[in-house]
Amino acid sequence: MEPVNVREYEALAREAMHPAAWAYVSAGSGDETTMRNNDAAFGQLEIMPRVLRGVGSASLSTTVLGAVVEHPILISPMGVHGLAHPDGECATVRAAGNAGTLMAVSTASSRSLEEISASATGPLWFQLYVYRSRQFAERLVRRAESAGYRAIVLTVDSPRWGRKERSMRVAETLPPELDYSSLDDEDLPEEEFEPAALTWDDVDWLRSLTDLPLVLKGILHPDDAALAVEHGVTGILVSNHGGRQLDGVPASIEALSNVVDAVGGRAEVYLDGGIRRGTDVLKALALGAKAVFVGRPILWGLAANGEAGARHVLELLRDELEAAMVLAGQPDVATLDPDLVMRRH
Amino acid sequence: MEPVNVREYEALAREAMHPAAWAYVSAGSGDETTMRNNDAAFGQLEIMPRVLRGVGSASLSTTVLGAVVEHPILISPMGVHGLAHPDGECATVRAAGNAGTLMAVSTASSRSLEEISASATGPLWFQLYVYRSRQFAERLVRRAESAGYRAIVLTVDSPRWGRKERSMRVAETLPPELDYSSLDDEDLPEEEFEPAALTWDDVDWLRSLTDLPLVLKGILHPDDAALAVEHGVTGILVSNHGGRQLDGVPASIEALSNVVDAVGGRAEVYLDGGIRRGTDVLKALALGAKAVFVGRPILWGLAANGEAGARHVLELLRDELEAAMVLAGQPDVATLDPDLVMRRH
Amino acid sequence: MEPVNVREYEALAREAMHPAAWAYVSAGSGDETTMRNNDAAFGQLEIMPRVLRGVGSASLSTTVLGAVVEHPILISPMGVHGLAHPDGECATVRAAGNAGTLMAVSTASSRSLEEISASATGPLWFQLYVYRSRQFAERLVRRAESAGYRAIVLTVDSPRWGRKERSMRVAETLPPELDYSSLDDEDLPEEEFEPAALTWDDVDWLRSLTDLPLVLKGILHPDDAALAVEHGVTGILVSNHGGRQLDGVPASIEALSNVVDAVGGRAEVYLDGGIRRGTDVLKALALGAKAVFVGRPILWGLAANGEAGARHVLELLRDELEAAMVLAGQPDVATLDPDLVMRRH
Amino acid sequence: MEPVNVREYEALAREAMHPAAWAYVSAGSGDETTMRNNDAAFGQLEIMPRVLRGVGSASLSTTVLGAVVEHPILISPMGVHGLAHPDGECATVRAAGNAGTLMAVSTASSRSLEEISASATGPLWFQLYVYRSRQFAERLVRRAESAGYRAIVLTVDSPRWGRKERSMRVAETLPPELDYSSLDDEDLPEEEFEPAALTWDDVDWLRSLTDLPLVLKGILHPDDAALAVEHGVTGILVSNHGGRQLDGVPASIEALSNVVDAVGGRAEVYLDGGIRRGTDVLKALALGAKAVFVGRPILWGLAANGEAGARHVLELLRDELEAAMVLAGQPDVATLDPDLVMRRH
Repeated sequence: MEPVNVREYEALAREAMHPAAWAYVSAGSGDETTMRNNDAAFGQLEIMPRVLRGVGSASLSTTVLGAVVEHPILISPMGVHGLAHPDGECATVRAAGNAGTLMAVSTASSRSLEEISASATGPLWFQLYVYRSRQFAERLVRRAESAGYRAIVLTVDSPRWGRKERSMRVAETLPPELDYSSLDDEDLPEEEFEPAALTWDDVDWLRSLTDLPLVLKGILHPDDAALAVEHGVTGILVSNHGGRQLDGVPASIEALSNVVDAVGGRAEVYLDGGIRRGTDVLKALALGAKAVFVGRPILWGLAANGEAGARHVLELLRDELEAAMVLAGQPDVATLDPDLVMRRH
Repeated sequence: MEPVNVREYEALAREAMHPAAWAYVSAGSGDETTMRNNDAAFGQLEIMPRVLRGVGSASLSTTVLGAVVEHPILISPMGVHGLAHPDGECATVRAAGNAGTLMAVSTASSRSLEEISASATGPLWFQLYVYRSRQFAERLVRRAESAGYRAIVLTVDSPRWGRKERSMRVAETLPPELDYSSLDDEDLPEEEFEPAALTWDDVDWLRSLTDLPLVLKGILHPDDAALAVEHGVTGILVSNHGGRQLDGVPASIEALSNVVDAVGGRAEVYLDGGIRRGTDVLKALALGAKAVFVGRPILWGLAANGEAGARHVLELLRDELEAAMVLAGQPDVATLDPDLVMRRH
Repeated sequence: MEPVNVREYEALAREAMHPAAWAYVSAGSGDETTMRNNDAAFGQLEIMPRVLRGVGSASLSTTVLGAVVEHPILISPMGVHGLAHPDGECATVRAAGNAGTLMAVSTASSRSLEEISASATGPLWFQLYVYRSRQFAERLVRRAESAGYRAIVLTVDSPRWGRKERSMRVAETLPPELDYSSLDDEDLPEEEFEPAALTWDDVDWLRSLTDLPLVLKGILHPDDAALAVEHGVTGILVSNHGGRQLDGVPASIEALSNVVDAVGGRAEVYLDGGIRRGTDVLKALALGAKAVFVGRPILWGLAANGEAGARHVLELLRDELEAAMVLAGQPDVATLDPDLVMRRH
Repeated sequence: MEPVNVREYEALAREAMHPAAWAYVSAGSGDETTMRNNDAAFGQLEIMPRVLRGVGSASLSTTVLGAVVEHPILISPMGVHGLAHPDGECATVRAAGNAGTLMAVSTASSRSLEEISASATGPLWFQLYVYRSRQFAERLVRRAESAGYRAIVLTVDSPRWGRKERSMRVAETLPPELDYSSLDDEDLPEEEFEPAALTWDDVDWLRSLTDLPLVLKGILHPDDAALAVEHGVTGILVSNHGGRQLDGVPASIEALSNVVDAVGGRAEVYLDGGIRRGTDVLKALALGAKAVFVGRPILWGLAANGEAGARHVLELLRDELEAAMVLAGQPDVATLDPDLVMRRH
């Protein structure tokens, strides 16, 4: 029977994937407190519905940095989709296009960024890890520009890799196909691929490098959001990296409101982390996110049923969002308001 | 052994009912968060009893929109009682009458509204779904008027049906008797039976159509309660549809006080959702409900033991309410006060 | 191996007692929410210890209505100790005397009040149920006076009996020895033994009847505590009847502070409900109780090992209390302060 | 496979140790509420990370009372390491030295304080129990001075031993090697080894006795911290003795901030209790601790793998701390701020 919700894909993916690949994808860092809270924190927020407003359907279409999407449910940058399915990011990007949405492509993809864009029918952003070598980063930006990517998403929460213990315990049994083949053609010493401790100067340098709009991914503190705006960033992705970097930081939905307030409309704000239901999307939008990014569930769909699975995950969330908006009396994602959401007693 | 409380009927009903019928009745929408909270939220409220007031028994009798009932525990509108027992609503309505209370009859009953009223000895309200066709709604109102129903309960939380996943998972095995036979004689195209996105104009139209008092069912937001009063509504049923519409909205008991404040005595306020104990009734009344409606437990009683079971459920709640009032030193449901209830630490 | 704490006696008692007797003793009313909270609420309070005060032992001795006790851990009035042990209250009262404390003897004892007082070496109070007949109550008071009881404890929370469902489910199998033999010699029609809805007039009448000091048992509301003082009551036992009357009322320790404030030193205030540890006693004393009463644990000790078991329960609590005071830097039960206790985050 | 975190050592130690030794080490007093809270309370605090600060590594080095340590993770004084491993404290102290940190040596060690210092390569403090005999305490202080210990840690929370029930239940089966052999050469009557109820005079006496700096261990109340400063104490170890003394007192991390405020920089403040993760260390430092002490995990490492195990536990915590600081954008333990930590919703 076809899954009736996103959570059901999790079990299917666990069965379908190599245990080491599953461990890598599903793990959070440390005690996985933040990873669990990402999900649970949505349950502490309640929706206060309105009635008799004649809302029989809801308009979900929006724009992100000018790109039109059919709904505000985007695909978060994640590495090595090949762990979930042999078609890797090429399947995911077709799912994104068919579902009318945008995909953010990871530096650490299983496929090259050109190969992915060749399969795309919708807008793409390129997620950039700036490692030790600025030349390497520059080459990636140039390739992304040439391949038609519409924005650069700079990950700023990874001066070091989080320790994913669940994955470490099965590390020696990792399948050979765990391969960042997207970077195979890059000819750099391996130490250049170590994570680097970036600064706001790197942000300025990156802005000077390209006309593509810049999104910072991994901001939780409102002061960093304000700094981002001052440094000309046009998008802020509130994220704790799916609970995979520093365990013990707040759930992203808990950090959202303060970031939105600090930004004060001067940049677009997005969120990822713990989105499993259309009502989660609705809560994030009401609290000021322009769109949300979905991570693991996309890989669950991909593992369970390839492109069709990833697409179904997006469709389930989209349909749930639309239904939630109708039932909450909200006609348009553009007119949602923080009053729609309140903290549970 | 006869059940000693309402909760014990749940297990009996599960055994007695077809699995698909059970799934349909017991399911909430989405993650069933709201359904669970409806019940659990009562546990967060405590009763502060008074002593030595000479209260040896309590007066439970009250009126709802002028109709006298022996106690303020009414039967919520629910579809297809035939799923629980072959006698369907005819058994339930006899139970209501014998228990001295009022039943709200659903548009989606297994029996016709005339058949049900013919079996009734107590007051009836008619719950109305206004689908796509106003003519159809008007015909139902006329039939309800003719059959002696005393009020129209317009459901306002259902511009779309909630997604009851537990039920969807067994949907293909639904028993053939799941049948809205009450509408069999209506000669309308099927699409007319789709839910409609109502507006306050529909409320005004309905008021212009009939002299029967109008109750809106499914209000949680105090602003909607205030609007209802302005539109001449005389009763407001605070309800989240038993957690079957939008998952993630507040428990009804959590929404009650603000609605009562917004209404300010200009209409009667009722509550349904999560009533399982006489103390739950007491808490709702103390917080300003004129009466409560009970849903699933009635079907549990009906499934377990037909009319006698439904009646026993009502009697258990009534006896528990009376005992709770005596033990709390409260002589009369008319004189309960919000101070009786406080939030647990 | 001898139990190392009071909780271990619970399992021993369950094994030792007839299942129906166990159900009767251990049951709370309704969903047993209040019964569980009585215990759990102590866990929400923390003790803030002081150090280097030279406290190597602590003085536990105190008085209750003038009677000297070696420690402030008293025995709560409970019916039919014969359910726990054939020696019934005669064993319990010897345990109380040997442990240097006071016992409150229930109207519903297995043994007559004279028989119990004949076995006593410590002070006794008599707990009075005023049923329908004032003459019967008066006779009991006279007998208590003659037998040397030092106070009357009027139970005020029982205009009706709470519904103990756990006990109802095994009711037909009740052992024949469940017998209120203390009242056998009373020659009254059975309906006179039904609970009565008392008023403050009954309190005044009782005060006019006897010079014995009067304690009201079952007060939770501060306004009732204030009324009690105005009616000349000299002791107030904050109690919810061990969670056996109205389920859903606050834990007694949660109700204590407001009662203490309302009384303002004009009467002694006690507490029962949920005392399982010496630290529970310490918390109650710090929050203003002059002494605490212990219920079920006494019957657990009695069931497990007769008089010696009941005495050991008292000694465990006494020793734990003394140790807790020493470790908290508190030399004397007379000088405890509310600042010692704070609510957990 | 080598443990990937400190918690994994707990299971290994349980397997490796004699059941009675395990019970002794792992037990808390009473219901073990405080012991559990020590750990759980860290989970209620969240870290608010900063980004793009160029933090690629963090400086962990600090001083405690002038002694340089490579990181602020020290070894708490604990008795009889011989229960965990035959090499006892000699193994632990080598681990401490190799890990670049300080060890506090217990009066109740399995080895003599001279033997331990002979194995040390890093700084040592001597934890002192002042029993009934001041002469005995003085002799211990003189021996500690001679052996090069750098501070005296006076335990102030033990006028009596906490009741560790888990340990009592297996007490008769205690292994013969549970031996406080460090005191074998002391020729005192056994009653002199009973715990004593100390006063601030004892603190003054101890200060007059030696020029070694004095640390008080076991303070939770801010008023006691202020008194300690007034009595010339230079270090305060916020501790509840690992939940082994008075059950029901606050988790140490909950007590820390108020102590830090009361001390106002006039002494160093440390914390022990519940440290299991580098993020726990980070939280304690941010809230004002100069360093933390780790207890049971050291014995877990020791039991599982001797000196190497104890060292690995220290290294795991150190590495986790460094990673947490980098990921939180914090370059130096000296510049952490309370704003880094916030209470979870």
